[in-house]
Amino acid sequence: MKEIEGGVTAAQGFSAGAVLAGIKKGRTKKDLALIVSKVPAKAAACYTTNVVKGAPIQVTQEHLKDGLARAVIVNSGNANTCNGPQGLGHAKDMARFAAKGLGIPETEVIVASTGVIGQPLPIGVIEKAMDALVADVKPENWQAACEAIMTTDTQPKIVAVEFTVGGKAVRIGAMCKGSGMIHPNMATMLSFITTDCSIAQPLLQKALSESVVRTYNMVSVDGDTSTNDMVCVMANGLAGNLAITAESDDYRAFLEALNYVNTKLAKKIAADGEGASRLLECEVAGAKTDDDARTLARSVISSSLTKAAFFGADANWGRVLCAMGYSGVSFDPERASVAFSSAAGRIAVCQDGRTTNFDEEFAKKVLLEKEIKIEVSLAEGKASATAWGCDLTYDYVKINGDYRS
Amino acid sequence: MKEIEGGVTAAQGFSAGAVLAGIKKGRTKKDLALIVSKVPAKAAACYTTNVVKGAPIQVTQEHLKDGLARAVIVNSGNANTCNGPQGLGHAKDMARFAAKGLGIPETEVIVASTGVIGQPLPIGVIEKAMDALVADVKPENWQAACEAIMTTDTQPKIVAVEFTVGGKAVRIGAMCKGSGMIHPNMATMLSFITTDCSIAQPLLQKALSESVVRTYNMVSVDGDTSTNDMVCVMANGLAGNLAITAESDDYRAFLEALNYVNTKLAKKIAADGEGASRLLECEVAGAKTDDDARTLARSVISSSLTKAAFFGADANWGRVLCAMGYSGVSFDPERASVAFSSAAGRIAVCQDGRTTNFDEEFAKKVLLEKEIKIEVSLAEGKASATAWGCDLTYDYVKINGDYRS
Repeated sequence: MKEIEGGVTAAQGFSAGAVLAGIKKGRTKKDLALIVSKVPAKAAACYTTNVVKGAPIQVTQEHLKDGLARAVIVNSGNANTCNGPQGLGHAKDMARFAAKGLGIPETEVIVASTGVIGQPLPIGVIEKAMDALVADVKPENWQAACEAIMTTDTQPKIVAVEFTVGGKAVRIGAMCKGSGMIHPNMATMLSFITTDCSIAQPLLQKALSESVVRTYNMVSVDGDTSTNDMVCVMANGLAGNLAITAESDDYRAFLEALNYVNTKLAKKIAADGEGASRLLECEVAGAKTDDDARTLARSVISSSLTKAAFFGADANWGRVLCAMGYSGVSFDPERASVAFSSAAGRIAVCQDGRTTNFDEEFAKKVLLEKEIKIEVSLAEGKASATAWGCDLTYDYVKINGDYRS
Repeated sequence: MKEIEGGVTAAQGFSAGAVLAGIKKGRTKKDLALIVSKVPAKAAACYTTNVVKGAPIQVTQEHLKDGLARAVIVNSGNANTCNGPQGLGHAKDMARFAAKGLGIPETEVIVASTGVIGQPLPIGVIEKAMDALVADVKPENWQAACEAIMTTDTQPKIVAVEFTVGGKAVRIGAMCKGSGMIHPNMATMLSFITTDCSIAQPLLQKALSESVVRTYNMVSVDGDTSTNDMVCVMANGLAGNLAITAESDDYRAFLEALNYVNTKLAKKIAADGEGASRLLECEVAGAKTDDDARTLARSVISSSLTKAAFFGADANWGRVLCAMGYSGVSFDPERASVAFSSAAGRIAVCQDGRTTNFDEEFAKKVLLEKEIKIEVSLAEGKASATAWGCDLTYDYVKINGDYRS
């Protein structure tokens, strides 16, 4: 497997386009994107578990009932959520406009929106922009499409890989957005994945669901699970591999590549968390079960107190233990150990629930780096898990204190 | 019932003292306090649910097995947590020193500590300070005692009331501390309550447990449940009322007074949340069950995004709905309504899940006040609950970025 250029259009038969429709006042970057497959594709998705679901989520769930899709239409600047029946109508309109422009059935269109909640979507500007958007759809516009879905993101998040399935070169490409309102729960941002792999739809869904648990669901920026978030994948089969129809070696190769792509994106999201100055990676080893390990790692990464301590490069390992302590998982704190590592080195700070009387100066040096790993060891079992997050900074407060204005 | 002076020594037969023992380098305020009842008292407590429990918690749980206590010894500057068997020994030492100084059995001593986790407690300075501390124990030292338990608190938190039980004047007094690491869960800060009411121990525990659910457990500052927090009450019976031995009108009068005291303290904690510039009160009405109402109200008050929005006086009601949406409670967002109120007025911002097209200027005026009420109505049932919290500010990050240094 190797990384390649091309993002969401790296796989054969995919194109993308983007325009500035003018959905949010004052925005000067493009805000409406379209991803299109040359031929109908198998499609699978995971959605937010929030009870308050954006209208686009509801429409996409309906359209993906047959497991087929050919296009994604997505806007930033407005989440089209909490807008009642009118919002649902607008989400359907978005699919209809895109379908008409592309000459495909509207049930083959995935709809997504991101932005402020509770303000009516200006559907008129979207309709008006559709011709230009369809005209812009080309294999080379993968970067523009990704930029169009950014909200408070400071970096476009793009990955593509090439690997082999049954002797054929196969590609997975993806673009995603997300930097606030990010918290572990089935599908926690907008992520659009495309592949030319030929794979049966149930296995495509299975691979996506498995991968989400270990990647996107292990990221937390602020503990808030959004109303609109979704990960979807379209597989158009144009690589010409013998279709994956069982949990074979081919399936495992596909899953591994998908995990690689999703892990990369998950880390990009954490590193670009609103206001973040540091990427935090927490690995919990020696837990009783995978579920325990995941819950503990996420609790550490989600703790405001821990996140603020890392902003201050403060080796306050007590907060790491405290955050695990209220996670709901039972473990023996007297057998827990904690170390911090980064490009500057590694320092053990807690052994068997007590301080190691470590060198505070060296600890500071380790923690002043941009990427910090928190290594927790429990001596309770053999399960492990990794979660990603970021520090809590002044800028997080600033960004979210006046997001609407 | 009326509020009276005297805090934790307002009830007959209680005295308090405080000294600067020098537990944390550089601290110039007193850091060690003692609360004493003239006669043995019935005692009850609620403790943190964190798996990582401070050594003082473990010792207090042991000492309160017989439901009796006569003194509380409490220090700030060091939580005596994550210090292994040595920490447990130090917590027992604290009880032993206090018992010796007061000439009472050490099992009649409640022990509490608050401060940094994972640093050995300097037990020597506590032993050395004990004579001076015991000499300082007087009915008039209730303010000094409260100041000695403050950490990042900017205000001492003190309440006392007088009410009537069976024709006799009875008093409940209390002091508490807490401003960070505050999140709903059985007992979430240090709160010491004293009363001269005569009441059977099982009813004292029942009243405390009931009250905690509606008061302290409805406060969130940052979602982090501490390792050390505890609410305890001593009832010495010196008011001379006929002992409360059943769930009678007298019991209900006592419970009402206790709720009053605890609600006052809970609101003081929320208002003094680390870095807080605004007190937030969220009332959820029309929920299916009390549990649902409590979970929803707490989820709103705990959301980082919502808290940051209130810091910016931004009427971003979508975040209120979003936070309820991921709380785990099922409800119909299309029937949810939200209003904000304060000293400047009241404004309905969301009706049946949609915007009311409210006046943004007036909303800003309402939200610029110091105390904001978030009124949520669900039309699902008749249950309601109130939770308290604060906004998320630059100062929270600052305080917690360098707490240890």
